[in-house]
Amino acid sequence: MTILILMPDRNVSEVVQALNVIDTDLEVRVWPDTGDKSDIEFVIVWDHPTGELKKYPNLKVIASFGAGVDHIFKDTDLPKQVPITKIVDKNLTRQMCEYVAGVIFNHRLRLTEYSEFQAAAIWAPKEARQGNNVCLLGLGNIGRCAAEYLTVLGFSVSGWSQSRKDIENVTTFHGEKSLGKAISDADYIVCLLPLTPNTENILDKTLFSKARKGAYLINVGRGGHLNEDDLLEALYQGQMSGACLDVFRTEPLPDDHPFWRHPKIHLTPHTASLTDIDQAATQFYENYQNMKDNRPLINQVDVTKGY
Amino acid sequence: MTILILMPDRNVSEVVQALNVIDTDLEVRVWPDTGDKSDIEFVIVWDHPTGELKKYPNLKVIASFGAGVDHIFKDTDLPKQVPITKIVDKNLTRQMCEYVAGVIFNHRLRLTEYSEFQAAAIWAPKEARQGNNVCLLGLGNIGRCAAEYLTVLGFSVSGWSQSRKDIENVTTFHGEKSLGKAISDADYIVCLLPLTPNTENILDKTLFSKARKGAYLINVGRGGHLNEDDLLEALYQGQMSGACLDVFRTEPLPDDHPFWRHPKIHLTPHTASLTDIDQAATQFYENYQNMKDNRPLINQVDVTKGY
Repeated sequence: MTILILMPDRNVSEVVQALNVIDTDLEVRVWPDTGDKSDIEFVIVWDHPTGELKKYPNLKVIASFGAGVDHIFKDTDLPKQVPITKIVDKNLTRQMCEYVAGVIFNHRLRLTEYSEFQAAAIWAPKEARQGNNVCLLGLGNIGRCAAEYLTVLGFSVSGWSQSRKDIENVTTFHGEKSLGKAISDADYIVCLLPLTPNTENILDKTLFSKARKGAYLINVGRGGHLNEDDLLEALYQGQMSGACLDVFRTEPLPDDHPFWRHPKIHLTPHTASLTDIDQAATQFYENYQNMKDNRPLINQVDVTKGY
Repeated sequence: MTILILMPDRNVSEVVQALNVIDTDLEVRVWPDTGDKSDIEFVIVWDHPTGELKKYPNLKVIASFGAGVDHIFKDTDLPKQVPITKIVDKNLTRQMCEYVAGVIFNHRLRLTEYSEFQAAAIWAPKEARQGNNVCLLGLGNIGRCAAEYLTVLGFSVSGWSQSRKDIENVTTFHGEKSLGKAISDADYIVCLLPLTPNTENILDKTLFSKARKGAYLINVGRGGHLNEDDLLEALYQGQMSGACLDVFRTEPLPDDHPFWRHPKIHLTPHTASLTDIDQAATQFYENYQNMKDNRPLINQVDVTKGY
């Protein structure tokens, strides 16, 4: 009954500590010091090497260290039948919703613009931007929370998801064919989708061409959702007026990437939501106990959907 | 039955136009071309010269061009008994609430910080700030709206006002003696007060000394609420961690003012709420008709309170 932490290139000492605070008797190993691989029944993963998880013959749970699981499904050689779980954290959800609202307000109120003027001691009042229509792509836990937040704040909110979702005061659309219609009126297009083969590159020239001219993009999904060249072209053409990006295909973003100094792009270093280690440890421990006692797991991923 | 627009140093052509769109027969004059002063019964003012309003013998209404009326009471030689009105505009209120929420989110999420890092192509993720307690000074229309907004967004909100106000889910305080207690737990102190002799310089070293160490100040009241030297000292000592200021004693802020390049001060050029001209014109016209027909005025100011 051993837990393995399999998070290459991460400092995991805080995770080990948080688990030991909950239960001092837990046996926790840290990859690559796995010991006998047949001891391992529960693995906590982030960005593991492809094929690695097949090497543990008694594995019963694969637990993602975050809300996303696309890093797990990147592995095309996963052991079949082993259930996968993700973190669902109220604080993480709130943080993500705050990020979306904060970025929209920042843009409407021109706060970053005024900071730039301030540096040059320029007093240049302008009207706040008026765009009031927000389209949320993705209506899972975080999308629903963001929809509620933004509705209360007075925004007109629409939402799109793969399967049908109904949310009060929100105009919802579902399925690939309705994507263009969902975003057609939006001043702000917000990507909160899980990354799956269906959603990869969803933020591309086809989508931008269906947006209202001058729409603003916010990507807090994954870097893989965005076709970067298509965004640069849409910004150059003025079809999109700007973008705030929190996630990238390669992180940290390489020094020479054109996004760094693009005047219409704001970027944050994947901070829209950070997994709270204590909260995560609590959920890992709960599922570890569920596994031992043969009870159903919490926050289990639907493998057929990929999220 | 003539309306005078008395707004020195302002381009008022849009105001004249907005009034004429409502009623082409309105007689509107623009100061200093007053014509016969005894014709004037209704005056729309912003920053008028002291003593000027006494020169109109038949004046029946003094209408402020904004939500604030401190610019009127600066005139120590006002005609007695002439009622004063202000603008109460739902959009203006919402804009102000958005500003408060937007500035708090900006600070919590470090958006401006990340913009500075971006300029240097530095990838430096940090945890979001955790401060969750907001104290609103001033619980009029705007304060109430901000309280509701911030409560829904998950903040813990307290409020202080001169006279007692009760707001659901908000801990309220009133009267000078309770000011220190009201702000003592706040991570964010937000000034939404009207400027009166009682509230002038309320943001001073006494108040800062009673704040939680490292609190953040947001001033969207008036420049006269803030003792500027006391703020600079509190920032230097670390008693206050930063400030976002939208209003100043002298506007535009003079080129050589130390606020421009202070690393802990963000400033916006009095844009937290801009009067919507069409909305204002509608309210002026309504009160002009009320005056003619001897009906009660809307949005009348309590002269004894000064707001």
